[in-house]
Amino acid sequence: MDIMRYDLLVIGSGPAGQKAAIAAAKLGKRVAVIDRGNMVGGVCVHTGTVPSKTLREAIVYLSGLRQRAFYGQDYAVKDAITVADLSTRVGLVVRRETEVIRAQLKRNRVELVAGTAHFTDPHTLQVDTEHGPMSLYGDYILIGCGTRPARDPNITFDGKLVFDADQICKMDRMPREMIVVGAGVIGLEYASMYAALNTEVTIIDQRPTLLEFVDREISDALCYHMRRSGATFRLGEKVARIDSDGTETVTAVLESGKKVHGDALLYAVGRQTNADLLQLENAGLAADTRGRVCVDTHYRTQVPHIYAAGDIVGFPSLAASSMEQGRIASCHMFGARDTLAPEYFPYGIYTIPEISMIGRTEQQLTDAKIPYEFGIAKYEEIARGQIAGDQTGLLKLLFDPETRKLLGVHAIGEQATEIIHIGQAVLSLDATIEYFRDAVFNYPTFAEAYKVAALDGLNKLARSRPAAAPASPAPQLT
Amino acid sequence: MDIMRYDLLVIGSGPAGQKAAIAAAKLGKRVAVIDRGNMVGGVCVHTGTVPSKTLREAIVYLSGLRQRAFYGQDYAVKDAITVADLSTRVGLVVRRETEVIRAQLKRNRVELVAGTAHFTDPHTLQVDTEHGPMSLYGDYILIGCGTRPARDPNITFDGKLVFDADQICKMDRMPREMIVVGAGVIGLEYASMYAALNTEVTIIDQRPTLLEFVDREISDALCYHMRRSGATFRLGEKVARIDSDGTETVTAVLESGKKVHGDALLYAVGRQTNADLLQLENAGLAADTRGRVCVDTHYRTQVPHIYAAGDIVGFPSLAASSMEQGRIASCHMFGARDTLAPEYFPYGIYTIPEISMIGRTEQQLTDAKIPYEFGIAKYEEIARGQIAGDQTGLLKLLFDPETRKLLGVHAIGEQATEIIHIGQAVLSLDATIEYFRDAVFNYPTFAEAYKVAALDGLNKLARSRPAAAPASPAPQLT
Repeated sequence: MDIMRYDLLVIGSGPAGQKAAIAAAKLGKRVAVIDRGNMVGGVCVHTGTVPSKTLREAIVYLSGLRQRAFYGQDYAVKDAITVADLSTRVGLVVRRETEVIRAQLKRNRVELVAGTAHFTDPHTLQVDTEHGPMSLYGDYILIGCGTRPARDPNITFDGKLVFDADQICKMDRMPREMIVVGAGVIGLEYASMYAALNTEVTIIDQRPTLLEFVDREISDALCYHMRRSGATFRLGEKVARIDSDGTETVTAVLESGKKVHGDALLYAVGRQTNADLLQLENAGLAADTRGRVCVDTHYRTQVPHIYAAGDIVGFPSLAASSMEQGRIASCHMFGARDTLAPEYFPYGIYTIPEISMIGRTEQQLTDAKIPYEFGIAKYEEIARGQIAGDQTGLLKLLFDPETRKLLGVHAIGEQATEIIHIGQAVLSLDATIEYFRDAVFNYPTFAEAYKVAALDGLNKLARSRPAAAPASPAPQLT
Repeated sequence: MDIMRYDLLVIGSGPAGQKAAIAAAKLGKRVAVIDRGNMVGGVCVHTGTVPSKTLREAIVYLSGLRQRAFYGQDYAVKDAITVADLSTRVGLVVRRETEVIRAQLKRNRVELVAGTAHFTDPHTLQVDTEHGPMSLYGDYILIGCGTRPARDPNITFDGKLVFDADQICKMDRMPREMIVVGAGVIGLEYASMYAALNTEVTIIDQRPTLLEFVDREISDALCYHMRRSGATFRLGEKVARIDSDGTETVTAVLESGKKVHGDALLYAVGRQTNADLLQLENAGLAADTRGRVCVDTHYRTQVPHIYAAGDIVGFPSLAASSMEQGRIASCHMFGARDTLAPEYFPYGIYTIPEISMIGRTEQQLTDAKIPYEFGIAKYEEIARGQIAGDQTGLLKLLFDPETRKLLGVHAIGEQATEIIHIGQAVLSLDATIEYFRDAVFNYPTFAEAYKVAALDGLNKLARSRPAAAPASPAPQLT
C-alpha cells in the first residue's frame, strides 16, 4: 500500500483543526483533516456550542422572554413549547453549519478523511475507516482531537433520565423538574435555558461560588436572574449518589442528606480529552494527568513537527480561542507570520441573560493591588434596553484612575457577547475610556452603554478628585 | 415680575438639549430646559426615533421574520398582527423613556419649564406656559428646538389616509396597500416595516438612487431584500398630486401619468426646522434659507453666548450626533474641555434588514482617487448567522492595500448597528485590519464577521501581490 504524503495532517475537524487546515491550504500546502464521518465540525457543531446556542436562540424567541416586559409575565409565543419546535431548528442549523464547513474545506482543497486516527510513528497516522485501515504521512501533524464529557463510572448515563453534556441537546421531551450537577459554563447555560421554559431547575455544585473567573457583580446578577426564573442553587454541596428508577424519576442524594428529585439530570462536571485514543507514545509524546498535551506559545509540542490546539491544550477551551490557536500553529509551521495569541481574549457565556468579559475583573485587580475606578451603565437607562425589554442588563468598565486606560469590561444582558468586542478593541489598542466619552454611538443601541458607563466613571473621578481649577459653587436654587 | 436667572437656558429637551443641560449641570451650573409639557425628550422620543424603533422591534418579533428560515415562509407568531399589539408596546416604551429623561434631568437638578420659548433679546426668552408668559434670563442659551416634517401645502394631512412622519407612528389600523413618498431614511424605515407585515408598499422618490451616502453594494442589497418582501420602487418619478376620497382610498398621481392607489400614504420628504418659531431676530440671529442656524466647530452661533445643536444645525441630524453636539457645546461654554466632534461617526439606518456604516464608501474613495482593497464576510458563512436565521447579511471592510489601515466598514443585517462600533474603534484608533485577523471573537457572534472579512481581504492582497518569498507550488493532488 502506497502511503499518502501530506504537508499537514490534522486530527479533528473542530474549530482548531478547521482553521489550521485552511490557513495551511491558503499557503499552498497539501492538507488532510481526519475526523469521524458524521462529526465534521467536531463537538462544537454536533453536540456542543452550535446546538446549545441554537437551542438558546429558539428558547429566547419561543418563550417570549423579552416580550414579558410589554405583554406581562405570562406571555409566551407558544403556550406549550414542544421538543419538536426546538429540535427542528437545532437539526437544521447543525446540518447547515456542517455543510458550510465541508464547503470551506473543499473550496480550499483540504482533503477530508473519514475515520479515527492514531499515531504509528511520529510522522505517521493510521486511520481506521469504514473501508479498513489506511496510513497517512505528514511532514507536520496538528492534534486537535478535542474532549468528551467526563463521566463518573458510578453513574449510568442512559440518555433518558441521566444525560451528559453531549447527550442533553438530544433530549426528546421537555422536563418538568431538572437537576443540573456542575455549575460550570455548560451546566449554567442549560440550567438557564430550561428555567426560561418554566422547568424547575436545581443546580448543584461542590464549589461555594459560581464562575470564579467572572466578575462577582456579574455572576451575582446571573444568580439573581436565574433564581427569579425559578432556579434553585445548592452550592458547596456534593452529590453522594444518583438514583434512578429508569423510567420517571431521578434523585440526586447529597452528602448533606438532602434529596433532590427530578425527571431529568444533566451531569456536567468537566470534560476529558481524547488524547487517550491517539497512542501518543508512538509519537514520543505523553499527555499530562488531565489528558492535556503541553505546548509552547506557538502551540508546538515537545516534538517539533507536532502541534496541538483547541480543547486538548486546556484553558481557555473556547471555540473562538481554539480557532486562533489552530491558525497560529499553521502559520508558525510554515513560517507565514509569527503572531502570538493576543493578550486579551473575550469570554462569552450564553446563559440567559448572556455574559461577556474582556480584561481583568475587580477581584483580579484587587489581588494584584492595582487601583481602579469603575463606571456602570444600566440597560434600563438606555433607550435600546427599553425598546428590547431588557431592563436588567448592565455594562461595567474598569479603568486606571491616573491614566484612564481601560482595564476590563464586564457585561450581562442582551448582546453582551457582541458589544464586548468594542471594549476589546479599545483595550487591545491601549486607549483610555475617554474614547467612549468622545465617540458617537448609534442611537438606540446597546453599544451606547459604553458612553454612559464612561461618563459615569469620569464623573466619579471628577467628584473624588477636584480639578486644578476649583469647581463652581453649588447652584443657588431659588 | 422678577426675572429668573440661569447659567444656561436650553430650548428643547431632545437629545442635544438633554445632554447639553446635563453636562452643564455636572459642572455645577444652574440650568433650565424649556419644552412643551407633553414633549419631554423631543420628537426623538415621541414621534421619531424611539416609537419607530420600538415599532420595528415589535414587528420583527411578532412577524416572526427571522424565524422563517426555520419554520417556513408562512411563519408568523400572530397570524393577524393588530395595531393594539404594536401600539401597546410603543406607548409603554415612550412613557418609560420619558420618565428616564425626566428622572435624569431631575437628578442633575436641571429645571424643566413647560411651554414654548422665543427670544425677546439676546439673553432673554419669553416662555408661554399654561399659566401665562414668563421671562427667563440666560448667561448662555442653547438652541436645540429641532425640526418638524416638511409639509407640501397642496396636500391635506388628515392623519387618516395621509400621514406625515410625525403622524405615522399613531396610525390606528394596519394598511393593506401603502404609498411612501420619499425614499430617505424615514421613508425607507417605515416602508420596510410595513412590507415585513405583508402590506403592499410602493416607494416613490424623484431621485434615481436610494440613500446616496450609503455604499452602493449595501443600498442595492436593501433594495433587493425589500423587493423580496413585496415592496415596489418608483424611483426617478415625481408625484404630481395626491388625491384622497377621505375615507378609503388615496392615490398618488405621478408626473409620468402612473397612478398608485393605496389605503394609506406616508409623505416623508424632508423636515424643516422650528427656527421660525423662535423670533431669532430679537437675538441678532437669522436662520439660513433651509431654516438652519449656522455654528462653528464648537456649536457656537455668531452671537458668542448663543449655541445651537441637533437637527437645527443640519447634517447629520442623528440623535447620537446631536447628543454629542449638545455635550460639546456645554463643555465649550463653561471651559470644561475643548473637544471637537469626532472625525468618524456611525450611521444607523433601522430598515429591515438594518444598515450601518462608518468611514468612507467605495464611491467616496474612488472619487478621491484613494486606492483600496476590500474584504467581505457573508452572514450565511458564520455560525451566528445560521443560528439567528439571517443568511443574507454581510459586512464589508475597506482598507488601504499598502498600510492595511482601515478606511471604512459597511454592514447590512442583524445587529449591524451594534457591531459597527467595533470597526469605529479600530478606525478611530488608526489601526490596521490585522487587528481583526489577530483578535479572538466570541463564537458564535456576528462580530466574528470582522475576522472573516479581514482574512478575506488579506487573502486578496496575498493573491494580487506575491510576497518576496515565492509561494509554494500548487499542491499535487494524487
